Amino acid sequence: MSGEMDKPLISLHLVDSDSSLAKVPDEAPKVGILGSGDFARSLATRLVGSGFKVVVGSRNPKRTAGLFPSAAQVTFQEEAVSSPEVIFVAVFREHYTSLCSLSEQLAGKILVDVSNPTEQEHLQHRESNAEYLASLFPTCTVVKAFNVISAWTLQAGPRDGNRQVPICSDQPEAKRAVSEMALAMGFMPVDMGSLASAREVEAMPLRLLPAWKVPTLLALGLFVCFYAYNFVRDVLQPYMQESQNKFFKLPVSVVNTTLPCVAYVLLSLVYLPGVLAAALQLRRGTKYQRFPDWLDHWLQHRKQIGLLSFFCAALHALYSFCLPLRRAHRYDLVNLAVKQVLANKSHLWVEEEVWRMEIYLSLGVLALGTLSLLAVTSLPSIANSLNWREFSFVQSSLGFVALVLSTLHTLTYGWTRAFEESRYKFYLPPTFTLTLLVPCVVILAKALFLLPCIGRRLTRIRRGWERDGAIKFTLPTDHALAEKTSHV
Amino acid sequence: MSGEMDKPLISLHLVDSDSSLAKVPDEAPKVGILGSGDFARSLATRLVGSGFKVVVGSRNPKRTAGLFPSAAQVTFQEEAVSSPEVIFVAVFREHYTSLCSLSEQLAGKILVDVSNPTEQEHLQHRESNAEYLASLFPTCTVVKAFNVISAWTLQAGPRDGNRQVPICSDQPEAKRAVSEMALAMGFMPVDMGSLASAREVEAMPLRLLPAWKVPTLLALGLFVCFYAYNFVRDVLQPYMQESQNKFFKLPVSVVNTTLPCVAYVLLSLVYLPGVLAAALQLRRGTKYQRFPDWLDHWLQHRKQIGLLSFFCAALHALYSFCLPLRRAHRYDLVNLAVKQVLANKSHLWVEEEVWRMEIYLSLGVLALGTLSLLAVTSLPSIANSLNWREFSFVQSSLGFVALVLSTLHTLTYGWTRAFEESRYKFYLPPTFTLTLLVPCVVILAKALFLLPCIGRRLTRIRRGWERDGAIKFTLPTDHALAEKTSHV
Amino acid sequence: MSGEMDKPLISLHLVDSDSSLAKVPDEAPKVGILGSGDFARSLATRLVGSGFKVVVGSRNPKRTAGLFPSAAQVTFQEEAVSSPEVIFVAVFREHYTSLCSLSEQLAGKILVDVSNPTEQEHLQHRESNAEYLASLFPTCTVVKAFNVISAWTLQAGPRDGNRQVPICSDQPEAKRAVSEMALAMGFMPVDMGSLASAREVEAMPLRLLPAWKVPTLLALGLFVCFYAYNFVRDVLQPYMQESQNKFFKLPVSVVNTTLPCVAYVLLSLVYLPGVLAAALQLRRGTKYQRFPDWLDHWLQHRKQIGLLSFFCAALHALYSFCLPLRRAHRYDLVNLAVKQVLANKSHLWVEEEVWRMEIYLSLGVLALGTLSLLAVTSLPSIANSLNWREFSFVQSSLGFVALVLSTLHTLTYGWTRAFEESRYKFYLPPTFTLTLLVPCVVILAKALFLLPCIGRRLTRIRRGWERDGAIKFTLPTDHALAEKTSHV
Repeated sequence: MSGEMDKPLISLHLVDSDSSLAKVPDEAPKVGILGSGDFARSLATRLVGSGFKVVVGSRNPKRTAGLFPSAAQVTFQEEAVSSPEVIFVAVFREHYTSLCSLSEQLAGKILVDVSNPTEQEHLQHRESNAEYLASLFPTCTVVKAFNVISAWTLQAGPRDGNRQVPICSDQPEAKRAVSEMALAMGFMPVDMGSLASAREVEAMPLRLLPAWKVPTLLALGLFVCFYAYNFVRDVLQPYMQESQNKFFKLPVSVVNTTLPCVAYVLLSLVYLPGVLAAALQLRRGTKYQRFPDWLDHWLQHRKQIGLLSFFCAALHALYSFCLPLRRAHRYDLVNLAVKQVLANKSHLWVEEEVWRMEIYLSLGVLALGTLSLLAVTSLPSIANSLNWREFSFVQSSLGFVALVLSTLHTLTYGWTRAFEESRYKFYLPPTFTLTLLVPCVVILAKALFLLPCIGRRLTRIRRGWERDGAIKFTLPTDHALAEKTSHV
Repeated sequence: MSGEMDKPLISLHLVDSDSSLAKVPDEAPKVGILGSGDFARSLATRLVGSGFKVVVGSRNPKRTAGLFPSAAQVTFQEEAVSSPEVIFVAVFREHYTSLCSLSEQLAGKILVDVSNPTEQEHLQHRESNAEYLASLFPTCTVVKAFNVISAWTLQAGPRDGNRQVPICSDQPEAKRAVSEMALAMGFMPVDMGSLASAREVEAMPLRLLPAWKVPTLLALGLFVCFYAYNFVRDVLQPYMQESQNKFFKLPVSVVNTTLPCVAYVLLSLVYLPGVLAAALQLRRGTKYQRFPDWLDHWLQHRKQIGLLSFFCAALHALYSFCLPLRRAHRYDLVNLAVKQVLANKSHLWVEEEVWRMEIYLSLGVLALGTLSLLAVTSLPSIANSLNWREFSFVQSSLGFVALVLSTLHTLTYGWTRAFEESRYKFYLPPTFTLTLLVPCVVILAKALFLLPCIGRRLTRIRRGWERDGAIKFTLPTDHALAEKTSHV
Repeated sequence: MSGEMDKPLISLHLVDSDSSLAKVPDEAPKVGILGSGDFARSLATRLVGSGFKVVVGSRNPKRTAGLFPSAAQVTFQEEAVSSPEVIFVAVFREHYTSLCSLSEQLAGKILVDVSNPTEQEHLQHRESNAEYLASLFPTCTVVKAFNVISAWTLQAGPRDGNRQVPICSDQPEAKRAVSEMALAMGFMPVDMGSLASAREVEAMPLRLLPAWKVPTLLALGLFVCFYAYNFVRDVLQPYMQESQNKFFKLPVSVVNTTLPCVAYVLLSLVYLPGVLAAALQLRRGTKYQRFPDWLDHWLQHRKQIGLLSFFCAALHALYSFCLPLRRAHRYDLVNLAVKQVLANKSHLWVEEEVWRMEIYLSLGVLALGTLSLLAVTSLPSIANSLNWREFSFVQSSLGFVALVLSTLHTLTYGWTRAFEESRYKFYLPPTFTLTLLVPCVVILAKALFLLPCIGRRLTRIRRGWERDGAIKFTLPTDHALAEKTSHV
């Protein structure tokens, strides 16, 4: 096998590679492929491009040949699997049995299972495709790899796709051989342990944004609640008590009073868990205690919650800018002007109202500007170019600034309304008053943690100090993450 | 210890590295550089930083020395090339001949050609720089590498630059040696085969956004056509038939009625090829048939078309938000108010108009919001963090939602206008009616494919099933890409 | 050659790995960890996940065990350090001495110092943590590594974190061993040379956006100056000379007249240094002369200046779109309408004003659109997907277009105002006139460089040609960067 596997681009050593080269002068490592689907074809193209010699096994070579790069040799399955040590099995699970006829030629070779089960197949079979393949070919070493890579990425190369290739197998050498091929093809192999984890690896491409599910549902839930609340206050109440038809407000106005509430609450929910974690640590007097699961998960979804908050804030801005484009706005203005004339009022000006709006708008723009910086720095490519201190400075400090700014934005919007009885329609308080609760708690807590007495204690705890007699529980390592990224 | 360190993924062993080190105790690998330009200097800095011993050959060492990092030894060319096995040739093609005097010392060594021809040079010489160098030094092994890397990237390191380094040579060992150096310097070597492909490698840095040419021209073309059409309808017609001077509309209004048309049509053109591909496969009853080239290329430019569509949509939003800032808007409002007063109309309100605009604006914002999600997920760093299923979910499902939203946006904009004769200026239908054609076709087709009877057949075909007697053609592998990323 | 090429950082080979495997069948490499903090735990998790056998040394194994992944063996320090060759020291500097009891068992082993000093510690100790550790354990080889990686990144894996791991040590083999482990864990080792550079490596995580300091201060400075200037002209002057209360303009109007000035000047400052560099080269008749430091640094901060310019421009847009939302705007309109009626003027229309605003707004949107393209292409993940020519095309050509567009935007804003005496409040010229200075210089200079006579000379110089008798100075390599990215 050494002769075969010795050659890929990045098998780095010259002492013995030279010697081994002496044995096999200029023969590129040979790789076999079974199958003729899109994936098989892309795989062949990529392998050829990475300096491998590819032999494709097909039941009908004449017909299949045209589908593959000319550099790849297409022949009958029996012939194709004879010489190479590593053979990629690129056929659907249901056709695995059709390969059993080859079991003799395949004996002792490395079979790379690249298959991806569909959702149904994955649920239906308790046993992973790779393990099933292994059970069919007990004399072969099965390696699960490349299933997370799409045919597109294989062809276009790692630049246009995810570099990481999870690999698992029960035989270390086989795993390493395939790892080196992956590296030679420009991918980054990641060891996933034994073949038992093949099922997990096969589940990876079935993921559908798991980290976003809960935050998205949360945002939608908040939207629905606030929308309903605003509908009652701004549309239903006028209709029932003043019999005014304000239903035209549904598409824009009500949405635009709802979005900022959602954005604002979501933003505060990004910083609340950090505060809770800190409080918990202070009370327990140690950090070596596991947090309740809900807190752990919350801490790990802050990025998503924060981005959703930014998205809502941005939509809020767009909707606000649309307000003057509305016919309703135009009519209101004209009618106001006419009213002025009829009332013989020559000059209309309410200094307080003017100031309120100017400050309100300015704070809003600044808050959105700060949030946009947060959003940009959470792009993978930017986050990766920041060191830990820079990242937490932006995410934690700037984020807190954004929270304060949007609180002020909300307060100037509310102005004195919270104290005007007329605002309590159906005895319901103005919406903004409801949104203020959580953010204010967070801000106050953060202020407290800045007090030297508390702050110093917290730092000591974070550094591993413990209050005597702090009860010990186990702390799951996944919690290290949350703590490390704590925004406190 | 070898036993210990031997096993992980990318074989770690110290046995023979130790032994070999024993032979050459603490001497870093030595590399030669010929040339003293920016590139030579950056190369030297990078090599030194990656633990290599660098010897620079110069005709005037005393003068050149100051330009290089102090760690690099600068000496006369003859001396510099004597000991190292690998020598970087960082001089312009026209000076290659000046090195012929060194041919004896260079015999049997590896010459790395890092040169980049200018466009003219590339067109002028049929033969690549690397091949030319090889012809001058038949006793050396020439390797083409690092030409795609800028001096900037070399210095700043891979983080700030593209990691991939295409490498080609006729000698595998030489190729591997240079690949290892590239890896050691933090780059990702990519095997490009024999030196014959040097010309192709040298052409890489000359690329100028090839994938964007056609889509950009398409967008510009659409813009010009729609602009002309709108000009005739909104400016020329009033001028000629009602002798009204509306030319002030040219900079903003006409542009702002044109941009959405372009954005909307472009968006539909992102999804049309997928529909055509599916239709073709259904008719042929197989996927193993090559699509016409134009369709292949179209399928591969959808990303660019989609991003241009988003760009136009965003500009449309900006222009729309500018409308109320226009003096014309101000004057219109005031004049309308005055007219109201003179007509003694106390209250102006057209419920239908109000509703139309509210819905129109809301749909517009939502469409833009959805498009922005698409744009963000097509950023390399984000796309790479998504698995295949997540990517296609966003690009295909969300994209289709955006298409539907913008169709509704267009329809509410049009409202009943399509049926009002007065709108047909010069007998030209309102612009929006023209834009509706393609999108509606796409939406209908997609709806059809969702019908179980057709949908199931399509899935079977996509999975490799073929109708008996489906005529077979060859399918180019580059088509696998298109199919894999099909938005259907 | 083997001696030479044997050394690079990463070495993979199979021939003898197989042979050596023969000796030790299936035993994963064993790694030791001292410490039980977050980092130790994350490290253990990652190592286990990458196929290493992990032994954790603790003073109180029973208690600590729960904190680590079950796969990791937790035992007493003495026992833990006995068998593995590589031991990670994950304890705070102040506890290093507590390990001295282990010095016998540790003799001859590789100690990996992963510690990160705090800012104070870093300033306080002249000697790096790694060197301090080395001084305590003279019989061991100390390697500095992984300190730039956060516990989060260690666990979540390279995809969610920076891949690069700077490594330094005085012993090449030890360095390579750790480099290979880093690679096996999915990171990209970067050789930083001897242990002497440990201090530098330890300083890396302490960086706080150094490249942004100066540009940010510059932007803030400009903002303050222009804000003060506009305050005097727009608020103070009316108050003092016409005793009008315009203070309500402070939050929005004044900010919105200030932001564009800042954005515009910053943009011109992105292109000024390139012009200066070119001018200098023309005068000196050579490029092999070092630029003054201030110019070097300026050239290297253009990206940050440009992004800040875009940020200000975007805020300017947001503020502008807020204008019609202001109460002041509403009142002005109504009052204007009323005035019209009272004056019995039925139709209000100033063609010139209309045209001015339309052109002004259109140019503004286009300028912002162009700037946004620049901003997007300076995202790492996008910049990396562009070759050198594409990047400079976008940054230099598109950037210049943006500069021209914003100049026209400014000029149409100014219109004839520069020549109206009434505009010179307190004899102060209108703000926009001040901002025009630098950009016009840049544009004129660029126009000059396009003249064949000058242009050709410049290209020759850039290609290395020198005027006879051009005095020679040394050129620092860091300058190669600046030159390579010259926007000229």
